[in-house]
Amino acid sequence: MNESFITLQFKEGALHLIDQRVLPTAYTEFVCRDYRDVEFAIRDMVVRGAPAIGATAAYGVLLAAMEFSPLFDQEGPEAFRAALGEACAYLDASRPTAVNLHWALERMLTLYDQNTWASSESIVAQFHKEADAIRAEDIETNKRLSAIGNDIVPDGATILTHCNTGALATAGWGTALGVIKEAFYSGKQIFVYADETRPRLQGARLTAWELTQAKIPSKLIPDSVAATLIRDGKIDLVILGGDRVAANGDVCNKIGTFMLSALCKLYGVPFYSAVPISTIDFSIQTGADIPIEERDSTEVSHIGDVQVAPDGMEVYNPAFDVTPHQFITGIITEEGILYPPFQKRIAELKQRLGR
Amino acid sequence: MNESFITLQFKEGALHLIDQRVLPTAYTEFVCRDYRDVEFAIRDMVVRGAPAIGATAAYGVLLAAMEFSPLFDQEGPEAFRAALGEACAYLDASRPTAVNLHWALERMLTLYDQNTWASSESIVAQFHKEADAIRAEDIETNKRLSAIGNDIVPDGATILTHCNTGALATAGWGTALGVIKEAFYSGKQIFVYADETRPRLQGARLTAWELTQAKIPSKLIPDSVAATLIRDGKIDLVILGGDRVAANGDVCNKIGTFMLSALCKLYGVPFYSAVPISTIDFSIQTGADIPIEERDSTEVSHIGDVQVAPDGMEVYNPAFDVTPHQFITGIITEEGILYPPFQKRIAELKQRLGR
Repeated sequence: MNESFITLQFKEGALHLIDQRVLPTAYTEFVCRDYRDVEFAIRDMVVRGAPAIGATAAYGVLLAAMEFSPLFDQEGPEAFRAALGEACAYLDASRPTAVNLHWALERMLTLYDQNTWASSESIVAQFHKEADAIRAEDIETNKRLSAIGNDIVPDGATILTHCNTGALATAGWGTALGVIKEAFYSGKQIFVYADETRPRLQGARLTAWELTQAKIPSKLIPDSVAATLIRDGKIDLVILGGDRVAANGDVCNKIGTFMLSALCKLYGVPFYSAVPISTIDFSIQTGADIPIEERDSTEVSHIGDVQVAPDGMEVYNPAFDVTPHQFITGIITEEGILYPPFQKRIAELKQRLGR
Repeated sequence: MNESFITLQFKEGALHLIDQRVLPTAYTEFVCRDYRDVEFAIRDMVVRGAPAIGATAAYGVLLAAMEFSPLFDQEGPEAFRAALGEACAYLDASRPTAVNLHWALERMLTLYDQNTWASSESIVAQFHKEADAIRAEDIETNKRLSAIGNDIVPDGATILTHCNTGALATAGWGTALGVIKEAFYSGKQIFVYADETRPRLQGARLTAWELTQAKIPSKLIPDSVAATLIRDGKIDLVILGGDRVAANGDVCNKIGTFMLSALCKLYGVPFYSAVPISTIDFSIQTGADIPIEERDSTEVSHIGDVQVAPDGMEVYNPAFDVTPHQFITGIITEEGILYPPFQKRIAELKQRLGR
C-alpha cells in the first residue's frame, strides 16, 4: 500500500512540496524555484520531519548548482565551489537539530569534492541523480525499517505515537508511522492514539490526516492525556521518530518525547524510536551535545491568526527534547533493532557501515 | 493587593460574569438573568474553576428562587421546593467533576430545608445573603490558604503551575495562583512557568493574563515542555489547584496534572495542590470514584473557529485526571497544609470540622 500523495518531487526544474502548514483543511503545493525557497520551506516548516528535510535539502543543493552553472562555466570550479558552499551553509542553518539536513548537504558536497567536473551540465545531471537517490533510498529505508519494526508490534496492540513520522515527515512511507502502517496492512488489529503535539500540532494536522487516509482505527489526544493512558495500562507500546540520535543512544526528538519516555519507564511500557541510520550522529557522544532549536514565541501565543496569550507574556518554546537512552527500549533502524547497551551496539553499527 | 476585575458579581437582579471564553484578547461581561443562563455559563465555561463554579451556582439558586417566588406565594412551600430542587439538579448536571458545585447547591438547599419561611421575599433575601456569604468566604479562604502556602515557597523559587487557579477560577484572589501572588507581593523573588493547558488553554488565556496584570516574572510553555524543566532542575516546586480531593488525598484536577506529578515524583521535585476545604469530598474514598468529565471533541479538533484535525478523526478529550496521593507532597488548605499520611490527616480534619 502506498500513499495517494507525494511529499516532495522535483519536476519542471523546481522542487514541489506539499504545503504542510495548511493541512489538513487545505491541500496545496509549495514550489521551490531556487535554494532560498528551499531554505524558507524548511525554516517555516512547509516541509518538516528529519528525513524529509534531508531529501528536500539535497534538492536545494541541486537548485543551487543550477543557479551557479554560469559561474562554473565563466569563472571555473573554485568560484562555483565557493558559491555552492555558501548556499549549503545557508541551507544548513535553516533548522539546527535534525542531523539528516546536515548529512544530506554533506553527501552532496562530498559528491562534488570527490570528482573532477568537465562541465556544469554534468554537475547538474549528477546532482539531480544524487538527490533522487537520497529520496529513493529514504523511501526504501523506511520500508525496510517498517518491516523490521512490525516484528515488535503484537496483534491487537494499542500504540501511542507523537508528532508526525509518516510519509509527510520523510521522502515517503514514514518511520514510526511507517511501522504502524506496516502492522496495520499486514493484517494486525491495532489501535493508535496520536498526540496532537503542541505547539505546531503535527499530530492533529498531519498524523491524524495520514491515519484517516489509511483508515487506521485511531483517536487524537491532547499531549497531556498520554500520561494517564500509559499509567492505566491502555498503551501496549509507544513508537515515535527521532531527529538526531547520539552515539550513546540518547534520542533527540519533538518536544514531549521525553515526557512520554519517563512515563513509560515508570509504568513498564515499551518505548521505541524508529529512525533511518542517517539520523544517527556518530560524532556526538551524548544527547547533551545536541543543539535544541528554540522557535518563535508566536507558535505558542497564537494559533493560526488567533491570539491566545496576552500581549507581553513571554514564551519558552523549545522544539525538541532529549530522551536519555536509559528510558528507551529499542531503536528501530533499517539495519535491525538496536537494544541496550546502545553505545556498544551503535559503535558496532558504525564499524560495520565503515563510517 | 487585589485584582482590578471582579470574576462574579450579583447586581441589578442578575449575575454578572467575566466571559472567560474570550480572554485575554477581549474583556466582556456575560450576564445571567435566570438559572438557565447560569447552567449554560458553567457548562460552556464562561466561568470555570472549581471554587468559581461553586459561587456561581449559589447565585443560580438565588435566581431560581426569584423566578419561583410566585409559586411559593400561590401554591405553597412544597411546590416551590419541588421546582427549586429541579433547578438545582439541572445546575448540578452542568459539570460533573468539581465537587464545589454540588457543595454550594447543597448548602443553599439545606438553608431552605432547615428553616420555615413566611414569604418568598424572605427566601430571596436569605438566599441572596447566603450566596454573598459563599462568595465572600471563598475570597477569605483563598487569602488564608495563600498566606499559609507562602510558607513553603522559598525566596528565589521557580514555580511551575498548570491551568488557571487565580482570581478568575475563584470568587476572587485564587488558590494555587493565590499562593504564588502572595509570595510575590510578600517580596520574594519568584519566577513562574505557566503551562498553556490544552485543550482549553486556560494557562495561556487566563493565567498568563493574571500574571502579566500582576507583573510577576513568568513564561508560558506548551504542556509537554514541563517534563524537561522538571528533569533539568529548573523547577523548585509545582503548585496547582484541585477540582475534587478524595478522602485518601488523591487529587482530581485539570488534565495534565498527573503527568506533572509523575515527573516530580521521579525527579524529587515538591508537588503541592492548593484547595479550599470545600474541594475535599469526604464521601469519596479514592480518586477512582471521581467521575471524569469527557468534553466535546471540537475542543481538540478546532481552536476557536479554526479546524486543526481532519474530518472523521476521533478524539479522546477527558477534562481531568487523578493524581494519586503517593505523588503529592502536600495539600494546602485554609486550615493548614496537609501532609502524608493524607487519609489520616483528612479524617482528622473532617472530625475537627464536624462534617
